[in-house]
Amino acid sequence: MDPTKPVRNITDGRRRRGAQSRAIILSRAIEISSTEGLGGLTIGRLASDVGISKGNITGLFGDKEALQLATLNAAVEVFRTEVIAPSTDEMEPVKRLQALCENWYDYVRQRVFPGGCILYGTLSEYRAKPGAIQDQVNHHRNAWTKLLSSTVKQAQQRSQIRLEIDADQMIFELTSFQAAANIAFILGDHLTFLRAHRTSRERIAESIFSP
Amino acid sequence: MDPTKPVRNITDGRRRRGAQSRAIILSRAIEISSTEGLGGLTIGRLASDVGISKGNITGLFGDKEALQLATLNAAVEVFRTEVIAPSTDEMEPVKRLQALCENWYDYVRQRVFPGGCILYGTLSEYRAKPGAIQDQVNHHRNAWTKLLSSTVKQAQQRSQIRLEIDADQMIFELTSFQAAANIAFILGDHLTFLRAHRTSRERIAESIFSP
Repeated sequence: MDPTKPVRNITDGRRRRGAQSRAIILSRAIEISSTEGLGGLTIGRLASDVGISKGNITGLFGDKEALQLATLNAAVEVFRTEVIAPSTDEMEPVKRLQALCENWYDYVRQRVFPGGCILYGTLSEYRAKPGAIQDQVNHHRNAWTKLLSSTVKQAQQRSQIRLEIDADQMIFELTSFQAAANIAFILGDHLTFLRAHRTSRERIAESIFSP
Repeated sequence: MDPTKPVRNITDGRRRRGAQSRAIILSRAIEISSTEGLGGLTIGRLASDVGISKGNITGLFGDKEALQLATLNAAVEVFRTEVIAPSTDEMEPVKRLQALCENWYDYVRQRVFPGGCILYGTLSEYRAKPGAIQDQVNHHRNAWTKLLSSTVKQAQQRSQIRLEIDADQMIFELTSFQAAANIAFILGDHLTFLRAHRTSRERIAESIFSP
């Protein structure tokens, strides 16, 4: 310790290095879990991949489950940045709905994550494993479904989408097509991916109110 | 060796015991992989679960990947028995299509596998892991899709389903609803499961030719 430096600067430096290490670890953890599942994450493998000791990783995140939860939440932040955030530029609810749909297909096609959409992948992986990770991914699933449904309902209030459309049914269909598209794209079945995208666009277009 | 016994009986006995061991091991392997994924299978865990030595398991199946492939194929046999076989009793293609759809929802609801439909679960698990298991599960996926599409086309040839229906589009939608239903049911979201089932029935009903 250098007694000429104020204690606060040392603490700030440690915090900054801690934040940098967290970012490096999470970035690699997202990559691994995108293709191999959150279950494929181990502190030992991460440590050797990023060159940070297991002890330091544990110090930053806690146990394996805490690391998996941090990885899931960091990946969902990327999902929000790529899919949701750009849609908020649109003032009209129906345009926001269209943007959410287009952004989701773009984000899978551009391989923001190598294994496709983190949400659908993790939902399938944890569907039969009760616990904190299942609770968290289910929470993200409900938030995504609710955002889409409420956007349809706002568009109905603005007479942009026909009132006889059942918003929950429409979003059930759009999210089912996403679940199928996510598997198809990563498996290399681009025809099915394109069909899912086209069908989703058509569903929205057919629902639009034409006076 | 008892020289008074014919060699054939000894061989038969060994074969029978080998077949019994295989069946016991595969049954437990299917259970484990249904909820934890084929990736969750290890020879060590199976050995301790079923009380058969690791060496014997390796002797019967080969390496871990061979065991995973044998487990996948055995589970798909159960799928065929539960979902496909009973539909072949129906002589009319449209009735076969309805039976395939009903049988699939029954098989998930009755928890034939604790983690839901083995096909959709394994497709998601291996979507980003190229190799023999991905090839095999993709083969089963294509066979399922083709069976459904060809059943629709046969029903169209018999004027049971309207000719303007695009069979591949219809089956894309029905299988997307299954992918969503499989996750929803196991997560405990029974409303979405019922919605998927009802929507699938309606899609088929709407496609039926009415003179």
